[in-house]
Amino acid sequence: MNKTLESAEIIAVGTELLLGQIANTNAQYLSTELAGLGLNVFRHTAVGDNPARIREALEAAAERADLLIVTGGLGPTQDDVTREVTAEFLGETVEMDAAGLEKIEAFFRERGLTMAESNRRQALTIRRSDTLPNDTGMAVGSAYAGERCALILLPGPPRELRPMFARYAVPWLRQRLPDMQPLYSRMLRFAGIGESSLEKQLLDLIEGQQDPTLAPYAKEGEVTVRVTTRAANEQEAEEKLAPLLREIRKRVGDHLYAETDIPLEQAVAELLLARGERLAAAESCTGGKLSDLLTGVPGSSSVFAGSVVCYTNAVKQRLLQVPADWLEPAPGPEQADTAEPPYGAVSARTAERLAEQAAALMEADWALALTGAAGPDPAEGHPPGTVYIALARRGERASAQKLLLTGDRDMIKLKACKHALFFLWKRLVKGVNSL
Amino acid sequence: MNKTLESAEIIAVGTELLLGQIANTNAQYLSTELAGLGLNVFRHTAVGDNPARIREALEAAAERADLLIVTGGLGPTQDDVTREVTAEFLGETVEMDAAGLEKIEAFFRERGLTMAESNRRQALTIRRSDTLPNDTGMAVGSAYAGERCALILLPGPPRELRPMFARYAVPWLRQRLPDMQPLYSRMLRFAGIGESSLEKQLLDLIEGQQDPTLAPYAKEGEVTVRVTTRAANEQEAEEKLAPLLREIRKRVGDHLYAETDIPLEQAVAELLLARGERLAAAESCTGGKLSDLLTGVPGSSSVFAGSVVCYTNAVKQRLLQVPADWLEPAPGPEQADTAEPPYGAVSARTAERLAEQAAALMEADWALALTGAAGPDPAEGHPPGTVYIALARRGERASAQKLLLTGDRDMIKLKACKHALFFLWKRLVKGVNSL
Repeated sequence: MNKTLESAEIIAVGTELLLGQIANTNAQYLSTELAGLGLNVFRHTAVGDNPARIREALEAAAERADLLIVTGGLGPTQDDVTREVTAEFLGETVEMDAAGLEKIEAFFRERGLTMAESNRRQALTIRRSDTLPNDTGMAVGSAYAGERCALILLPGPPRELRPMFARYAVPWLRQRLPDMQPLYSRMLRFAGIGESSLEKQLLDLIEGQQDPTLAPYAKEGEVTVRVTTRAANEQEAEEKLAPLLREIRKRVGDHLYAETDIPLEQAVAELLLARGERLAAAESCTGGKLSDLLTGVPGSSSVFAGSVVCYTNAVKQRLLQVPADWLEPAPGPEQADTAEPPYGAVSARTAERLAEQAAALMEADWALALTGAAGPDPAEGHPPGTVYIALARRGERASAQKLLLTGDRDMIKLKACKHALFFLWKRLVKGVNSL
Repeated sequence: MNKTLESAEIIAVGTELLLGQIANTNAQYLSTELAGLGLNVFRHTAVGDNPARIREALEAAAERADLLIVTGGLGPTQDDVTREVTAEFLGETVEMDAAGLEKIEAFFRERGLTMAESNRRQALTIRRSDTLPNDTGMAVGSAYAGERCALILLPGPPRELRPMFARYAVPWLRQRLPDMQPLYSRMLRFAGIGESSLEKQLLDLIEGQQDPTLAPYAKEGEVTVRVTTRAANEQEAEEKLAPLLREIRKRVGDHLYAETDIPLEQAVAELLLARGERLAAAESCTGGKLSDLLTGVPGSSSVFAGSVVCYTNAVKQRLLQVPADWLEPAPGPEQADTAEPPYGAVSARTAERLAEQAAALMEADWALALTGAAGPDPAEGHPPGTVYIALARRGERASAQKLLLTGDRDMIKLKACKHALFFLWKRLVKGVNSL
């Protein structure tokens, strides 16, 4: 077959997927890789270990796409029928791959084990296909260039599928891709803005897109925009993308924290590292999540000193010296923004004091503090989602911002952390002291 | 429609799935839930935000299954076409859900924000369907009992989809299931044991299962086993399940912390609440994750005092009084388990001191401490995954355990936290001071 490949579908075989025992992470992995090769993925399908249903899925997919990637059902047991059904669909038979069989036999021989006859099945491949070796397991894969479609057969376990695909299927595919220019993408990452608000400001660009294309999507508490073009080389891509990138920066640049695909906590950690500075935190309503995010960045111990998770007023008083009379029950939530105590724990003044004390106590250059109502119940009369965040530079007065966030308890905690990180980011990059 | 439902397919809509930006975890969640209801899931499909492709998937699925569950594409933007395409497929139109709209408007009104017109779209539902309220977001869902098939429309974000399905779609479905004896399930939750190790000890039960059935699966850092039977009533189910439950408890009961579906942090919080006791923590390598897990449990402020995230040795010294000479670079990792300092930060003695000090400082009845190497690099010569956890009762000497964990940075942090919680759980429930 000399047909070039432009579109693909992924068919996963396995009753365990339909029972919910595992998630189809293979489809995600393969989709990312195929997008990188410039192939359009039209559909993911998962069916059980059932010959008729597998066949039906293969027939339908071959009507739509040039390339079918079929995963799973290559094991040694009676349930594992994918190889035979696929061969039949292609009008072929299965045959033993000599190198694959020798490898399986050697495995048992070297360990002094008796090989069950069923293990031989894992060396079966589709006649007239190219065998894809399995460096991390037994079952071989196949790559078949047929009249109707091309087809790649891969084992289900991700630790076998991924190396097989990357090492053997990708080179096979590259020879069959259209002689097109490669794709170049840029990822723009935004904070402090919701997906729908960002999209509204870019709506005409999204609706009118041709080349370059752009696609916004929401990740946990953040928004990402991907812009993509085809070009002969990196420099030409740069030139083609530049006007669109300029326009996006002009419209929503206030919220743009990175032009690479990194989470906000990593962007902040990198800034601090470059400045040789260290951050501390005091967390009430977020309960350690800000620290967890920051310490998820490898190497963060150089820039993050630590945090006091002050989940009770007693800890706020003892460890962070918030005056007891500030924390006494306030007459109402409106007291949180006044000049006289008691402000309550959920207040601008308490957040500021927590940040100032965290910086001093942990000898950090900067400190962030968060206090509020994560829900589901109100706190001190404040509805869930009310959060005060404060940023302090060591030895200076802190300043606080009030947030009104939506979502469940965990989402409110996450959004509060992302806003706090963005508060610091803006101070470090733009020199402003507000969100 | 009075047709009863026996089979289902799940159709996910979202170009982000086909680009590999997210995994289709909704299909996994829904499959597990549908299996629990006794419905057979025939197929999962994922298509892009493309009206023709969505329609094609709906038409084909309706030929095979009684119930279609369609997820994603209910947001406010132009891309979000699922509602309209689905309504057209059913021969219906969309109409505004008054309660849903009022909720969206109230949200903006209460916060003094201007509502974009596009936000109204999220209150659109399918004509003649039952609206499924969204307790954790804006977009309403729909449940439609049609001639060709029943159809349930759910929002894409898991934190919206899951509560909507569990609270509103499940009761709707239960009324339409065949007149069989209902299913009764028990969830057994395990900690301190891996999935494959647990499965190995239950292998003959899993392979020989008929009625009751049992299915183990791994959740984040924990393992769950679901046992299910059909019975006329709760008492009969109890009797049918009892022998299998007894056998499971006999084999792996040492790791069984709950016979209801709650995470370990909630089980620990409930124990502490019943005892009127409070927990504190000192976290080095887990960087706040233990606190984040515990404060994810609503009401945890009654049982969790707080935590010192001591990410540097300076914070360990200053806030938690670990002697400086303990923390000096040790001659080798083996020094961590000896009687003479320097032990290093990653050591049993340091973990014990951190726990003892955390309990004292935050006036808590119990404290957990964690210190180790989360990876990707070794710490003080200890390979990634080496973690010391310590448990202290206030005023008493702490005791430590050494863990050797596998996984990436985030998984090591998570597993360490779960082991620490299980350490406390065993002390509280079994009175033993070891894992």
